[in-house]
Amino acid sequence: MTDTVERAARPTTSERYSGPPLAGGPGGPAELRRLIDIVLTSLVDGAAARGGPLPAGDPSELKREVLSSLGEVLPEEGAGPDVLGPLARMFAWGASDLADPAWSAHLLCPPLALSVAADVAATALNADLASWDQTPAGIVLEGEVIAALAELVGFDPATAAGVVTSGGTESNFMGLLLARDAVRPRHPGAADAPGPGGGRLKIFASRVAHVSVRRNAALLGLGTSAVVPVDVDENYRMDPRALHAAMERAAAAGDAPLLVVATAGTTDFGSIDPLREIVPIARAWGASVHVDAAYGGGVLFSDRLSGLLDYIEAVDSVSLDLHKFGWQPVGAGVFLARRAETFDPLAVRAAYLNPEDDEEAGYTSNLGRSLLTTRRGDVFKIAVTLRALGRSGLGALVDTCCERARYAADRVRAEPRLELVAEPTLSTVVFRYRPAQDDPVSSDRINAGLRRRLLRGGTAVIGRTDLTGEAGGIRLKFTTLNPTTTEADVRGLIASVIAAGVAEEEARCANATDNRSN
Amino acid sequence: MTDTVERAARPTTSERYSGPPLAGGPGGPAELRRLIDIVLTSLVDGAAARGGPLPAGDPSELKREVLSSLGEVLPEEGAGPDVLGPLARMFAWGASDLADPAWSAHLLCPPLALSVAADVAATALNADLASWDQTPAGIVLEGEVIAALAELVGFDPATAAGVVTSGGTESNFMGLLLARDAVRPRHPGAADAPGPGGGRLKIFASRVAHVSVRRNAALLGLGTSAVVPVDVDENYRMDPRALHAAMERAAAAGDAPLLVVATAGTTDFGSIDPLREIVPIARAWGASVHVDAAYGGGVLFSDRLSGLLDYIEAVDSVSLDLHKFGWQPVGAGVFLARRAETFDPLAVRAAYLNPEDDEEAGYTSNLGRSLLTTRRGDVFKIAVTLRALGRSGLGALVDTCCERARYAADRVRAEPRLELVAEPTLSTVVFRYRPAQDDPVSSDRINAGLRRRLLRGGTAVIGRTDLTGEAGGIRLKFTTLNPTTTEADVRGLIASVIAAGVAEEEARCANATDNRSN
Repeated sequence: MTDTVERAARPTTSERYSGPPLAGGPGGPAELRRLIDIVLTSLVDGAAARGGPLPAGDPSELKREVLSSLGEVLPEEGAGPDVLGPLARMFAWGASDLADPAWSAHLLCPPLALSVAADVAATALNADLASWDQTPAGIVLEGEVIAALAELVGFDPATAAGVVTSGGTESNFMGLLLARDAVRPRHPGAADAPGPGGGRLKIFASRVAHVSVRRNAALLGLGTSAVVPVDVDENYRMDPRALHAAMERAAAAGDAPLLVVATAGTTDFGSIDPLREIVPIARAWGASVHVDAAYGGGVLFSDRLSGLLDYIEAVDSVSLDLHKFGWQPVGAGVFLARRAETFDPLAVRAAYLNPEDDEEAGYTSNLGRSLLTTRRGDVFKIAVTLRALGRSGLGALVDTCCERARYAADRVRAEPRLELVAEPTLSTVVFRYRPAQDDPVSSDRINAGLRRRLLRGGTAVIGRTDLTGEAGGIRLKFTTLNPTTTEADVRGLIASVIAAGVAEEEARCANATDNRSN
Repeated sequence: MTDTVERAARPTTSERYSGPPLAGGPGGPAELRRLIDIVLTSLVDGAAARGGPLPAGDPSELKREVLSSLGEVLPEEGAGPDVLGPLARMFAWGASDLADPAWSAHLLCPPLALSVAADVAATALNADLASWDQTPAGIVLEGEVIAALAELVGFDPATAAGVVTSGGTESNFMGLLLARDAVRPRHPGAADAPGPGGGRLKIFASRVAHVSVRRNAALLGLGTSAVVPVDVDENYRMDPRALHAAMERAAAAGDAPLLVVATAGTTDFGSIDPLREIVPIARAWGASVHVDAAYGGGVLFSDRLSGLLDYIEAVDSVSLDLHKFGWQPVGAGVFLARRAETFDPLAVRAAYLNPEDDEEAGYTSNLGRSLLTTRRGDVFKIAVTLRALGRSGLGALVDTCCERARYAADRVRAEPRLELVAEPTLSTVVFRYRPAQDDPVSSDRINAGLRRRLLRGGTAVIGRTDLTGEAGGIRLKFTTLNPTTTEADVRGLIASVIAAGVAEEEARCANATDNRSN
């Protein structure tokens, strides 16, 4: 009898699964251990083959190399799991290595090993925050992480709310969206209804605010013309008098001031708009205030620097990005609203995700807080990092990076071949190489050229920006988000920049001479 | 001399980094190996402690357990890296295990070990698709993956374009957005400008289309009333005559038919709207066609089933989700447009990401194809999977899941206690438990109750939906996206459902008796 029962329960031969192993199930973790080991070895090999922060070569050469390693990406018959090692090696070789001290280009951090390891759990389990029954623990964790970050910002966690997002662009979208829908009839969300006073809705942001503000206004159907650029002071901070004047002008034209987007940490200078002055002005015109603290929000971890975000507790919503100061892999964005009811217009009911009777029974989720439906369990790596490092541990990393930026600024100032544009507020340093023939056109060519020369040589990855119409034209940028970078590394990076500048000048000179002699 | 140089190059003691290790740099992979090993062990331990697809208990009990494991999520002083093991174990215990054969609830797959392992490379490198200099290899890979998937859909990869997204909701947003902006002046993107004919823009989708269609219309400022629900046939497929009539009515009312959103694989029934009939109707009214193939797109991998998506090559844009049929961890969404110029309104120029002279020198990216700025390297895991399994390997997994769904439907039909609602088209099976007292109110209560009973017992995770106004009220759902599930597993799951239904009826009966005797 027992035999018969067992036979019935055991799958027949034809049923037995012989496909590629899953990450879950009884054999999953062992298979993962084997495959991840291959990936980690490939990361080492790929980095060694790269031999610097970027592989040397022109984009076309790099492309050729990647394509030849890849082969046909979707063949009729698969090439089998053995492709993993070579492809991971190629991907690591063809990477831009954020952990290399000569990488100093963007507001993106080299992530902590702890966070990357934690993320394996979320990925292997394919934790989806869309509904309770897809990750009960994840739903609870998100509530705790949001409450802790709301408290960090100075919101009352009992009445605030928030959600983990893919990053600052999505968080800023939510800030604009919820401001728009707060003045519109609930749910329909039609942008063609007039503003409360009958006029067009207007959003005020400093003219150095993130590119996503205008872009998001377009996505939301408000039009890019809804965004009014406000002038900045000499430190690239929104000028409160200019804000007042801009809002006054809009109101006089019959438009409805909807929202002020203040920036706490601009992309180039890390400058922080003066919230204590901005908030009362916004309120006086009936507008709410969203703070894009994607970059600068990290100073809240630091005792020494948190004063820079003075008065942030008074605003209506905030964007944070823990893949900047926070040392998380992408995505680790957070959107916070001071009042939970701000989210009401996003409420959604799906019979298969959050039926009312299930919610009453305690099976809740954050579905009505996110723009997405399926949403990866990024919250787990964030929770592990916050708990392991604590506020002071993260603050120490922020302090180190900001110190390193000040050191870099000092060294740039000391170099006659370089010109510092402004003292760093956070961890970015904007400067330029001063060519011998120092006119605007030559300066732009040499600076853009030397940066590409560094990329092509695989020597260094540094940032650039364009200040045309302000302090000049093309400028270079160091972004020090790597806490392991030493002062010696900074000196080495500066030496590379100068060497590339000199080489670029010589090459252009030789070119010009050649052209003349031809 | 040598000694002096070495000493100068070596960082001073005060500079030496003593913080938490990074995932990158010389020591990164070794540290990752150590920490990931802890995570993998915790996944095994957590799954053992869970002992089923979900931990047993009420949501409040589970929450208490998670909170007590977690402690304070953001303490002033960190608890140190040793929290990783216990937290990962808690997260795995409190998970909903997609790889468990008794998990059959949502359109989310248990991912392949290969893909999860590959993703570690993208996470450790923090590959960001926002600019060339953040992942040169990633930029090339995305181009190849998009071209291959465009070809799979039947688009000409030379003239098509696309982007990897977080999932179907974001992809569908793009479909609506680009249709809206195609009929609007370039860039401003103002939804309050009238449609081409001066009327309101209208979007037509079957009334069982995904919840994100209406929600996205609201986000875009078109208003939920812009979405016209179109009637379906008995197989829950959009009725072409109803579509024609709806478009005719809209045009007669002076509105502008903008877009038809066809669904290839509805959430409940997996039904596929008849594209060959829909496309000409849409074109006749001047509307474009977006196909939400987030679920059904996977049949393109299968020789046996790809005919179900007949004529998809003629539509304007398509959403795919490889975290459904595709066995990727979230996110693995794809948005494809038949003509690359569809993306023109999304074009963006940021001085720090894609300056013109850099692009001319070959340093390109997909920044102007995505709604996001920073975007994680999800493309790598996708590329590895496509290359390793090939079209036929993925097709075999799709076939297996669809076969298992047909088997489940047969077994449901054979059970007198159960009632099958419709034959499965893809891999979902909608049914209900037939209570002894079979009126609509009792049926709803018992079915919703038995599902929660299965969750509470940690026995099984099955889906539910609500067909009120159609075939009745609350219905249950199996979603067979786990190719390792055997026919014996299906029989076991059905037995669990019946047992839970019987227990639920008995409990309610006992309750009623108690109430009467009190």
